[in-house]
Amino acid sequence: MADPIIFYFDFTSPYSYLASEKIDALAASHGRTVDWRPILLGGVFQALGTVSLVKQPGMADYSVKDFARSARFLGLPYAHPASFPVLTVASSRAYYWLLDQPGEASCALARRFAHAVFRAYFADGCDIAATAVVLDLAQKLGADGTALDAGIRAPAVKERLRAETDAAVAQGVFGAPWIVVDGEAFWGADRLPQIERWLADGAF
Amino acid sequence: MADPIIFYFDFTSPYSYLASEKIDALAASHGRTVDWRPILLGGVFQALGTVSLVKQPGMADYSVKDFARSARFLGLPYAHPASFPVLTVASSRAYYWLLDQPGEASCALARRFAHAVFRAYFADGCDIAATAVVLDLAQKLGADGTALDAGIRAPAVKERLRAETDAAVAQGVFGAPWIVVDGEAFWGADRLPQIERWLADGAF
Repeated sequence: MADPIIFYFDFTSPYSYLASEKIDALAASHGRTVDWRPILLGGVFQALGTVSLVKQPGMADYSVKDFARSARFLGLPYAHPASFPVLTVASSRAYYWLLDQPGEASCALARRFAHAVFRAYFADGCDIAATAVVLDLAQKLGADGTALDAGIRAPAVKERLRAETDAAVAQGVFGAPWIVVDGEAFWGADRLPQIERWLADGAF
Repeated sequence: MADPIIFYFDFTSPYSYLASEKIDALAASHGRTVDWRPILLGGVFQALGTVSLVKQPGMADYSVKDFARSARFLGLPYAHPASFPVLTVASSRAYYWLLDQPGEASCALARRFAHAVFRAYFADGCDIAATAVVLDLAQKLGADGTALDAGIRAPAVKERLRAETDAAVAQGVFGAPWIVVDGEAFWGADRLPQIERWLADGAF
């Protein structure tokens, strides 16, 4: 079995949302699985001394148009969030807490939760920065809300998210989505066609 | 006849080179022509107070890999230039001088010259910042080198390039390639598939 594809993302990144809706099916069609890893882009930018592309002068208006147009191009719903970007600390910690629960079902639940967070934010207008919203999304999927609420504030979970973000920076991540296939890094949802060819034909 | 597609580019922009090899055929397959307009990205960045993406911390190494991989993906030759980026004042002025010569052949000659400059820089390792190289490329296509040499230094030609760059900034250009189809702006060679759908099906 080939190694999993690694999918770094931030829940407030529109292009990460677009990739999140496509990456699993793309991987599966080539016999691959995907290892989803939320990170804090704010931490990445702070480490590198950069700012989000969408905050660069001149780029904001174009970017908002391109988010929506790219979603339509891919056949995905998109409603630009009223508050953008937002803090994704609670949602990202919740993801890792769900993932790290014992039992075989934890990975699938964490995956469904990640999809729910992305869709809540980019299609349904929910404020995913709010812990209450994050807990509600997880509970609707069957998670234990009380335990998750405590988990989000647990030092080990905080450290897990920090470590994932640091590890991403250490291996060269400077934006999201950041998708690694057999050591080859691809930045951006618009690299999905290149990933598809890489999976189909190998390195090109 | 529908309006021409407007193609803003800088001769030192790798993704502009990739787009330059595809845009005319793409347009022609939908009954369109393309209006090629070199601009000085340095002037754009200066006007906006930005820097080239490839100079952002962390992005340089990835970008160089992505230039070459994207070229392979599109079936185009690519050899990352030893000196990158370079000043494209001479090549851009030469383009407008050739374009603005009287006669019906001037547009086609300017187009062939633009292709020659891009290929000389990104495939053949030529230093297109050098006026002598620019003149040589034009002369090989049949241009009058002596007249072109004077043209590159003519105030009206300098002003033409400055005005094109200023006009680009005024309409929102912040990078290249920047392709406008019926008022809809697309940034980047990776938006060619979206442009193709726009041309085929209209606004989406």
